[in-house]
Amino acid sequence: MKILVVNPNTTATMTETAAHAARSVAAPGTEIVAVTAADGPASIEGYYDEAFAVPGLIRAIREGAADGADAAIVACFDDTGLDAARAFAAIPVVGLCEAALVTAGQIAKRISIVTTLSRSIVPIEDLVRRYGYAERVRVRASDVPVLALEDPASGARAKLTAEIERALVEDRAEAIVLGCAGMADLARALSLQYGLPVVDGVAAAVKQAEALVGLKLSTSKTGTYAPPPAKPYAGLLAGFAPL
Amino acid sequence: MKILVVNPNTTATMTETAAHAARSVAAPGTEIVAVTAADGPASIEGYYDEAFAVPGLIRAIREGAADGADAAIVACFDDTGLDAARAFAAIPVVGLCEAALVTAGQIAKRISIVTTLSRSIVPIEDLVRRYGYAERVRVRASDVPVLALEDPASGARAKLTAEIERALVEDRAEAIVLGCAGMADLARALSLQYGLPVVDGVAAAVKQAEALVGLKLSTSKTGTYAPPPAKPYAGLLAGFAPL
Amino acid sequence: MKILVVNPNTTATMTETAAHAARSVAAPGTEIVAVTAADGPASIEGYYDEAFAVPGLIRAIREGAADGADAAIVACFDDTGLDAARAFAAIPVVGLCEAALVTAGQIAKRISIVTTLSRSIVPIEDLVRRYGYAERVRVRASDVPVLALEDPASGARAKLTAEIERALVEDRAEAIVLGCAGMADLARALSLQYGLPVVDGVAAAVKQAEALVGLKLSTSKTGTYAPPPAKPYAGLLAGFAPL
Amino acid sequence: MKILVVNPNTTATMTETAAHAARSVAAPGTEIVAVTAADGPASIEGYYDEAFAVPGLIRAIREGAADGADAAIVACFDDTGLDAARAFAAIPVVGLCEAALVTAGQIAKRISIVTTLSRSIVPIEDLVRRYGYAERVRVRASDVPVLALEDPASGARAKLTAEIERALVEDRAEAIVLGCAGMADLARALSLQYGLPVVDGVAAAVKQAEALVGLKLSTSKTGTYAPPPAKPYAGLLAGFAPL
Amino acid sequence: MKILVVNPNTTATMTETAAHAARSVAAPGTEIVAVTAADGPASIEGYYDEAFAVPGLIRAIREGAADGADAAIVACFDDTGLDAARAFAAIPVVGLCEAALVTAGQIAKRISIVTTLSRSIVPIEDLVRRYGYAERVRVRASDVPVLALEDPASGARAKLTAEIERALVEDRAEAIVLGCAGMADLARALSLQYGLPVVDGVAAAVKQAEALVGLKLSTSKTGTYAPPPAKPYAGLLAGFAPL
Amino acid sequence: MKILVVNPNTTATMTETAAHAARSVAAPGTEIVAVTAADGPASIEGYYDEAFAVPGLIRAIREGAADGADAAIVACFDDTGLDAARAFAAIPVVGLCEAALVTAGQIAKRISIVTTLSRSIVPIEDLVRRYGYAERVRVRASDVPVLALEDPASGARAKLTAEIERALVEDRAEAIVLGCAGMADLARALSLQYGLPVVDGVAAAVKQAEALVGLKLSTSKTGTYAPPPAKPYAGLLAGFAPL
Repeated sequence: MKILVVNPNTTATMTETAAHAARSVAAPGTEIVAVTAADGPASIEGYYDEAFAVPGLIRAIREGAADGADAAIVACFDDTGLDAARAFAAIPVVGLCEAALVTAGQIAKRISIVTTLSRSIVPIEDLVRRYGYAERVRVRASDVPVLALEDPASGARAKLTAEIERALVEDRAEAIVLGCAGMADLARALSLQYGLPVVDGVAAAVKQAEALVGLKLSTSKTGTYAPPPAKPYAGLLAGFAPL
Repeated sequence: MKILVVNPNTTATMTETAAHAARSVAAPGTEIVAVTAADGPASIEGYYDEAFAVPGLIRAIREGAADGADAAIVACFDDTGLDAARAFAAIPVVGLCEAALVTAGQIAKRISIVTTLSRSIVPIEDLVRRYGYAERVRVRASDVPVLALEDPASGARAKLTAEIERALVEDRAEAIVLGCAGMADLARALSLQYGLPVVDGVAAAVKQAEALVGLKLSTSKTGTYAPPPAKPYAGLLAGFAPL
Repeated sequence: MKILVVNPNTTATMTETAAHAARSVAAPGTEIVAVTAADGPASIEGYYDEAFAVPGLIRAIREGAADGADAAIVACFDDTGLDAARAFAAIPVVGLCEAALVTAGQIAKRISIVTTLSRSIVPIEDLVRRYGYAERVRVRASDVPVLALEDPASGARAKLTAEIERALVEDRAEAIVLGCAGMADLARALSLQYGLPVVDGVAAAVKQAEALVGLKLSTSKTGTYAPPPAKPYAGLLAGFAPL
Repeated sequence: MKILVVNPNTTATMTETAAHAARSVAAPGTEIVAVTAADGPASIEGYYDEAFAVPGLIRAIREGAADGADAAIVACFDDTGLDAARAFAAIPVVGLCEAALVTAGQIAKRISIVTTLSRSIVPIEDLVRRYGYAERVRVRASDVPVLALEDPASGARAKLTAEIERALVEDRAEAIVLGCAGMADLARALSLQYGLPVVDGVAAAVKQAEALVGLKLSTSKTGTYAPPPAKPYAGLLAGFAPL
Repeated sequence: MKILVVNPNTTATMTETAAHAARSVAAPGTEIVAVTAADGPASIEGYYDEAFAVPGLIRAIREGAADGADAAIVACFDDTGLDAARAFAAIPVVGLCEAALVTAGQIAKRISIVTTLSRSIVPIEDLVRRYGYAERVRVRASDVPVLALEDPASGARAKLTAEIERALVEDRAEAIVLGCAGMADLARALSLQYGLPVVDGVAAAVKQAEALVGLKLSTSKTGTYAPPPAKPYAGLLAGFAPL
Repeated sequence: MKILVVNPNTTATMTETAAHAARSVAAPGTEIVAVTAADGPASIEGYYDEAFAVPGLIRAIREGAADGADAAIVACFDDTGLDAARAFAAIPVVGLCEAALVTAGQIAKRISIVTTLSRSIVPIEDLVRRYGYAERVRVRASDVPVLALEDPASGARAKLTAEIERALVEDRAEAIVLGCAGMADLARALSLQYGLPVVDGVAAAVKQAEALVGLKLSTSKTGTYAPPPAKPYAGLLAGFAPL
């Protein structure tokens, strides 16, 4: 089984982090192919960047599927372009936020998502509501940049753990979801530290992708996700026209 | 006051239809500037096309704002790219679906939206839910192409009125929203025919844009719609990097 | 275009405040006619006063419509008697709370309403829920009387700004709605002070009324707002019988 | 225990019907005092009539409470003026729709309300939503006038039973609530006919009133239902000023 | 009228407390028969204990009904086994949480439930949501064991009142529901102390049971609560097979 | 990895069906251990049977966990006893309905569940609402007994497919979930027949169990699912006391 992990931003080091997280949980026999989008923003911070990450994401999924991928993961916690990708791809496409929520929701009642930037709270709350978890999920931000978490001298990890501790007290959180891409190692360490499940989105998504492929299920092509009708595309985006 | 009407698909005849609808209701002193997106799909039918319409939409709003527009309207009933545009623009940005719902919601309790394609029902239902109208709005499709409505020989209008009649009986609709861009003339004729309000999205959006400009209000730049942080954009989309 | 602003309480100075707010945003060509209800409470503070404000409100709308008004505004943030007025009037009727929410909702995601009395919080929350904004609106009270806001020596404005500042921090508000009638000047000053949209209900309602009249739309007379059947009315209220 | 049944419309025969229904289920030791409002509409059909029924209702409750009533029932299925009455009265005030729903909700999952006029569907749906029963209640209209139900030759009962039968099939109703005032006899007959609970609002309200009085509980005077502050009332309604 | 109060845990002293609470509010002519479950846990603290309390509860209701009970009360605030009991019993079955909410909901808008253990918060929130009160009810825990409340030296009552005081301030509670079984005396004392309604579940349930019996209503046997089809039961639970 | 599949009813042939379904999708290296509950009903049809299935279920999970199971599946579509099992077990516990919904929800927007008996519709709708899928899931019953599906002469399959076809038209279903335990073969055949995803609960649950074990995640022991405190259990159920 070959699972494509697409980083929809154009920063290759983040792709590496996600790939590492994915490989650390992949089942024997699952091959992880990680790619970086070629077009679009260096990071995704809010609705604007999100919108411009989609063309690069779609191109990467198209190429990965042509190379034999059995499923694709959009490796960004905002589930950027997930509906567009599902409408286009013949293989199942999995999002980090959705995968993390369905995972955490089977092992805990109250869940807190701790993301990096506070401007991402509302977009993530939109996702939480759309996926049906609004009654039991709270979204928080630690206001630390993702990359800082890898630097022990940055004080970033202290900010993250402080926010988790607030979630335990104020939200009575029973599980924590880390709202950024690819922190499987950190999730495990925090889980031990706090004695409750800490879910990493990339790791959760790999398992949901394995589940769908293992069940021989793919996105419904009836109704909302039916393939887009053929039509001309103009200008910069001419290359993305559906066939 | 100068209001920019951006058709986010690349078909100029649709831009004309929307421009005509906009001008037919614009207040004295309101200038309507209608533009067609230069990049992207010839029409927007579902999530895939929607995603690829955003870059062209953003470019058109950016240029229109530089030319002195006081507000922008995204002239597609799917409210394509509305959040991205709001995060970027210094002027208010109005969507057709949202404008039509807030208009109809002040004159009727139960509302039925009649759109063209059934594959658009779920995306529009997502919007209805997000805007808070789920309890009193039903979404229906007449399964006729927009352009056919302009051809008396096509039978398209009979299909549309048949769907409206079903809405009156099955939904007990008290107002109808026409779920496609730019049918102000049709709205008025249908309103007379059925004796209840029929709302056209472009017309409603012009009035909401005039209202916001008249109130000297623009999109909040605190929180969710704060301008995207400066960062590099790569590849095809390098030109869209936030400054 | 002639817009009737009805103050449903019987205090003429409040009518003046609302009239001033309305005129400050009215479009060229819009005439504002402000009237004070002749029957009922001197102010509206909760469900009891609300109920008794309706007959005076209806009488004022009836007379204003007979004098050629094109639309009516109920100038109380509780949207007192709005459904009754819509069921009766041939012209569109606009409420302050509804108008302010649809306005703020097009320029911000999270909204905080700051009203005067804490006993009004639950009735306003009922409106917020009915209009579909419960997921993104919080209601707060500054516990200052409306009139005190006009007296610089009262300390009232400090209380109001303190509550707005709590909304910014605790609710992460992106826009503020002032939950009392007619403070357009204050709204503009506070908007500059805090750097985010501050919406006044009367001003928003004038623009929604202009929008509906400009679109030639009026309240649906099919279903919920159909005119009340003719029937005898007895006692004090005999004069209000529907015809 | 003395329970006041107030008919908020001015038709005395309807008061008799409600009084009969109330007495048929009152506990030994419960005295039913039924009064007809002196002011307002002869019947309540929609939002307009509702609004004008409140002053007469309030006067009747005030006088009844002065005469020693222990609780009051608003004998109209629209729960007309219930919040205003609760804000004013020192005794508990019970509504028919709310009482019927809490009763039916303890003996069935899916409930269908069958009311008389289709224009009442939306106002009753508003109540259903406010009381928290939206997920399991459907509202239907049989389109027969209340009084016709008492005339065997009118064909009205056949229309009512036809609507109940549609509810059994289409809604899979497990209990029926009769959405008009005072049909305890009919409720019992229909319950035997269809083999499921049929709830009459007046009967249910008598039992809820007995329950509250028996528990020595009355309306909270903290917050939303705190007594209205003293203030002048003008014109026709001067007599209703809170003290 | 004979009302069966079943304590679904096996601790007889709690049965006595509930019986006392029930008798203190029962109408003249209502006989309270209190029984303790013979099988299952000594107390119910969360989902596990709840599940194992059902067989003893069902046996007690079956025997009580055979002895002529007209209605049954499940005397545990978690409404343990309520759906199972309703599906089986020919008499109405009332739950404490549901009865307390419908009672408090008729006399207050905002309600806070104060229960004993914080691990019960989520199960009670599930009930609150299912009964339709989520928008106006908050659930809190005082973290004192039930029995400690009867011991003046334990400090338990101070903890309970501290939590009530937090509810008054933080939730703006207008009524308090005591979320454990059988504290009618305490409810009355706290109601006097704080000047707002304090509702005890057992007392509320007695009145709801009297109401249903007085209305000659019992659980619907159509649909969800239809009697379970006859079938073999094996092992420990063979004696519970439906007939 | 060893996954325990517990049939909570006492009919061994159903256990075999579920075991077969589980094994047909298990990953290489996953061992399926299927057991039949020793205590309780021969089948689970509604709330009553559900309640009595829990002790046998818990005993089977306890024994299976002691024998080294890494996760448990409750092989009944009603998710019988799932919360109780999670509060008790140290290993993750997966439910069929929840697993099927999270699976279908990642590949389709609108989902219809087709279960066997119409009396199960409301309990399953309760689950759907609790899991957050109410807005996009409809529940239907084909009214055929599970076992009849295995008998080609019974006409049962025709009834099932007729109900699926109604779901496609009336619900515009994009995926079907089979609402009974263990029909993996049937799911695949129907999926091919109708050209859309058809999800079997047992198969979906196996994959969710593999996912959780693969992620080294188990049920949170903080809060709602904390282990039940030690206490005496009496009578028939003495053996189930928590330690």
